[in-house]
Amino acid sequence: MAEKKENLQGLTVKKAVDFSEWYNQAVLKAGLADYAPIRGFMVIMPSGYALWEQVQRGLDREFARLGVKNAYFPLLIPESFFKKEAEHAKGFAPELAWIEREADGERVAIRPTSETIIYSFFAKWIRSWRDLPFRMNQWCNVLRWEVKQTKLFLRTREFLWQEGHCAYATEKECVDEALVVLEEYEKFCQDVLAIPVVAGVKTEAERFAGAKDTFTVEALMPDGRALQMGTSHNLGQNFAKTFGVKFLDEKGVEQLVWQNSWGVSTRLIGALVMVHGDDKGLVIPPRIAPHKAVIVPIIFEDSKKDVLTAAGKLAEGLAEFSVFVDDRDQYSSGWKFNEWELNGIPLRIEIGPRDVKSGSCVIVRRDTGEKKTVKLSDARKTVENALEEIQTNLFSTAKSFLDKNTVEANSWNELGKAIEERKLVLAAFCGSAECGKKIKEKTTASSRCIPFNQKPAKSKCVVCGKPAEKKGFFAKSY
Amino acid sequence: MAEKKENLQGLTVKKAVDFSEWYNQAVLKAGLADYAPIRGFMVIMPSGYALWEQVQRGLDREFARLGVKNAYFPLLIPESFFKKEAEHAKGFAPELAWIEREADGERVAIRPTSETIIYSFFAKWIRSWRDLPFRMNQWCNVLRWEVKQTKLFLRTREFLWQEGHCAYATEKECVDEALVVLEEYEKFCQDVLAIPVVAGVKTEAERFAGAKDTFTVEALMPDGRALQMGTSHNLGQNFAKTFGVKFLDEKGVEQLVWQNSWGVSTRLIGALVMVHGDDKGLVIPPRIAPHKAVIVPIIFEDSKKDVLTAAGKLAEGLAEFSVFVDDRDQYSSGWKFNEWELNGIPLRIEIGPRDVKSGSCVIVRRDTGEKKTVKLSDARKTVENALEEIQTNLFSTAKSFLDKNTVEANSWNELGKAIEERKLVLAAFCGSAECGKKIKEKTTASSRCIPFNQKPAKSKCVVCGKPAEKKGFFAKSY
Repeated sequence: MAEKKENLQGLTVKKAVDFSEWYNQAVLKAGLADYAPIRGFMVIMPSGYALWEQVQRGLDREFARLGVKNAYFPLLIPESFFKKEAEHAKGFAPELAWIEREADGERVAIRPTSETIIYSFFAKWIRSWRDLPFRMNQWCNVLRWEVKQTKLFLRTREFLWQEGHCAYATEKECVDEALVVLEEYEKFCQDVLAIPVVAGVKTEAERFAGAKDTFTVEALMPDGRALQMGTSHNLGQNFAKTFGVKFLDEKGVEQLVWQNSWGVSTRLIGALVMVHGDDKGLVIPPRIAPHKAVIVPIIFEDSKKDVLTAAGKLAEGLAEFSVFVDDRDQYSSGWKFNEWELNGIPLRIEIGPRDVKSGSCVIVRRDTGEKKTVKLSDARKTVENALEEIQTNLFSTAKSFLDKNTVEANSWNELGKAIEERKLVLAAFCGSAECGKKIKEKTTASSRCIPFNQKPAKSKCVVCGKPAEKKGFFAKSY
Repeated sequence: MAEKKENLQGLTVKKAVDFSEWYNQAVLKAGLADYAPIRGFMVIMPSGYALWEQVQRGLDREFARLGVKNAYFPLLIPESFFKKEAEHAKGFAPELAWIEREADGERVAIRPTSETIIYSFFAKWIRSWRDLPFRMNQWCNVLRWEVKQTKLFLRTREFLWQEGHCAYATEKECVDEALVVLEEYEKFCQDVLAIPVVAGVKTEAERFAGAKDTFTVEALMPDGRALQMGTSHNLGQNFAKTFGVKFLDEKGVEQLVWQNSWGVSTRLIGALVMVHGDDKGLVIPPRIAPHKAVIVPIIFEDSKKDVLTAAGKLAEGLAEFSVFVDDRDQYSSGWKFNEWELNGIPLRIEIGPRDVKSGSCVIVRRDTGEKKTVKLSDARKTVENALEEIQTNLFSTAKSFLDKNTVEANSWNELGKAIEERKLVLAAFCGSAECGKKIKEKTTASSRCIPFNQKPAKSKCVVCGKPAEKKGFFAKSY
């Protein structure tokens, strides 16, 4: 606490040397988040929250296009609701936080997810085939009292997320849209966050509690651990049965609905930091960056006014990129360069007295450090192109890493070796809970997903040797 | 549950006859909200949540202009934090919901408001005068375990709100900005929600727990009860002292910061319904309406295609007003008219086969029911003007009501009589807790605020007869 702010600037470890400590420093020093006084909780600071708002805006647009409407359901869920769906109750019981007060004579817990309470309303609101598909989403906080160590954004007891909940007349529509949402998540991860993912279906043991099928998109972090980026669940009619979510079909016959639910959380921000950050700090992909560029005027007393005027004009011309001028007097230009590198803003634009005279500015890319002197009249076009190039470069760098670190294993030994080397491993897998458990015990890796669109092959499970038509991805994970 | 949806349409009570039941029906039948399974909680349904999103967007724009940044702080607050500020702890103790689990050996409660946890971070983050003013806001859920009866949007144990928290180097800046925010609330209520308000300062007894001064904007509901629309608190240095929020001034001397906090909640939506709604349902002021107009095509089998094409074209031309076509086959036009009146959409545009032939459409105002046949080429201009007129009309109608129902009382008897008549009463008031209590006991009315900008007068308190320089507003309240 007694340290000066200046001393706090810059990361003191290298990403390649101590990834875990590098990550913590990158998040804390860029002011994305801070640890809360209670273990397992975090504060999302303005720079981190601005990224979350960008995620919200981006996904809300797509959800609206799919006909999904936002709503808000209560924080507290009665005990009897959890108990209705046995698998669901069992899955979440260890992580619930109960309230000391009873509500109407019943225990209540803070939501770990909202299937139960939302579907009790679906039962009331949905009446006929005319009401279907019925699509809702909420952006909210949820709480799961995990005992594992906190990792900012990646593992906290409370986190922010969105949970979509939809009901359909047929299983086909239900599964199709669960997959459409998964594709939206995939597109968002790849096109906006510049994080390549693999998509597939979870094995039974890794499924969401109460789901018939869980679809997932998974990314590989630089330390060789997989991170679940988003999931979409086909709930079948499990919840419809227990909550009585029924509709009258066109013939007037009462039917159970088919349901899916899906979500992404603030852990996307953690993934962003891990995948793109470097030894200088964050690197924010342009499409998710709240500000695409900062203008740092190079100030000398005698030319200050002209430089600030030119910087202001330049910012106006670049308004479409949410560009701003860092005209703080109390910090040197060098200090500002370091700060904006730490914060990961995609482009830095320098303008000093000589630039003003020559009608130019210097544009510096955050990802490559490349500097370019350009005419002020070309600045807009250069910025636009550079942002596109950064976005592309970040994705292709991450994609190369993923490709290089994805390997196939044809035997139990190869699997063990590849996991030890921190790879994302594809291996023939029978999908049984037992074989999954054996892999976990031996390697600490877990089954991430059975990727989509595999040609059925006559392979043998690398664990039990029994016939396995499909291959699965395995990795250590967050 | 067995009723057909058709039978649920329309309100069965008149606003003037049973205001309370009218309000509940208006909220429920327009699908703004529903009661949760636990008493005291509510579900905010899509139409209600869309209004809240509009409030968020509108205020976020103004907050950003003031330099306020959004963040997110933990849901759970340790017991020791509450205890640090004695007044604050006392104020909220009865309404806290504690968790059965301890966190790091300490009891934790769901936030009723976040001063304590946020200021523990201010103490860490704020170091020097350079960091000031320090301005943050969070949009979140809070929980206050009230025992009074639930009133949708107006009184629920959990509600959504924003809470702004700022720190300054001087008391003057702190108070000035607390008042600037109050003005933003006032403008938002009046210019966007079309709800006239009175602004002033709370008496000591009505102040926020731990504040030095609480500023408020209050509106008068049609049943003659006042509703607190938003508050802004000058916290002085109370919390700075207990949480050690200090900064080094320009001379290097350690000083305590001055703080304010301020908030509005989802109750604004309740106010909106109460003030503008009528016997047909909601009337949403255009500036807050997510959709400003709905196009209802009048469908006959032989002209269906032409009418739908014309409706689609018209909607395109009116895209800036978020206009959409209600082309649902399963409902009659009459049913749709009723539904959109119930839902309060500002304008309904009808277009049928004869309109298509004559190149016109019919524009119907929700507030007055006035119908106008206009050329399709004039539709945009007519819609634009009509929306402005509706906004103005709603405000001026509400303002007339407020003016008509605001009276001065010059004696204890006049005060009692005016309160009985459900007025907003202005009376000379010494401001003491004792006199406030006497008024409450006699009339059930409370002191709402001491309005700003009064000329000091030599009056006598209508309760105790002691000298009173200022007048205060009294009313029954929500």
